[in-house]
Amino acid sequence: MTEVVPPAVDEHGQLVFDVFARACTSRETLEHITGRWGILALAALMDGTFRFNALRRKVDGVSEKMLAQTLHALERDGFVLREAQATIPPRVDYSLTPLGRVMAEKLLDLIETLEGRMPQVLASREAVDEAKARA
Amino acid sequence: MTEVVPPAVDEHGQLVFDVFARACTSRETLEHITGRWGILALAALMDGTFRFNALRRKVDGVSEKMLAQTLHALERDGFVLREAQATIPPRVDYSLTPLGRVMAEKLLDLIETLEGRMPQVLASREAVDEAKARA
Repeated sequence: MTEVVPPAVDEHGQLVFDVFARACTSRETLEHITGRWGILALAALMDGTFRFNALRRKVDGVSEKMLAQTLHALERDGFVLREAQATIPPRVDYSLTPLGRVMAEKLLDLIETLEGRMPQVLASREAVDEAKARA
Repeated sequence: MTEVVPPAVDEHGQLVFDVFARACTSRETLEHITGRWGILALAALMDGTFRFNALRRKVDGVSEKMLAQTLHALERDGFVLREAQATIPPRVDYSLTPLGRVMAEKLLDLIETLEGRMPQVLASREAVDEAKARA
């Protein structure tokens, strides 16, 4: 756990959150939703409700432990709903909360924009690497 | 360096990028722009051109080494422009490229939305922790 300091308060007594301040709890939350697995889990859940193993197959490469940790943090922050079904065998479903959907929509938009711009990214890498090779 | 596999090609011979595929180079690029320091550096550069040390002060908590690595990856991917000025003493300016601005706008929107929703996040944490304490 990183040290968490209470957020600043403005002149109206409202809490002020600032991810640029290293001790602000919003930075920790930003890392939950944009971390390696958090962003993919949230974007995947835009497709609907998933059981743990189905979600794990979708987020290719994530370990069971890392996905469990990621979902736990996202559930605690209020982005993901975890529902244990009273079935035999027991089943656990994961879905987005309304707040989670707000963030996941933005993350999916970011992902799709990036995927569409990847040819530009690859062209830039090639140009930079060539310039370096010539230098 | 992670292993990079060529992206898939669709029926029209177009490259297909998919961050959900573990070996897709778009996942690596997503990590550059949403990584702990990448996202803050890009969002900070929405305010204009910065010298290295000014940017480092803005991204509170980043080490010199991590900021240099972060900017190097973002420059290679084509999101950040690095311009060495022929002044005495030499000066290096960092700014967003047009592609970097496209992504940084989305990241800043994500950050601002999250900062505005932090009271909900903190309320959720409290509720989850209380439920756990009662269990």
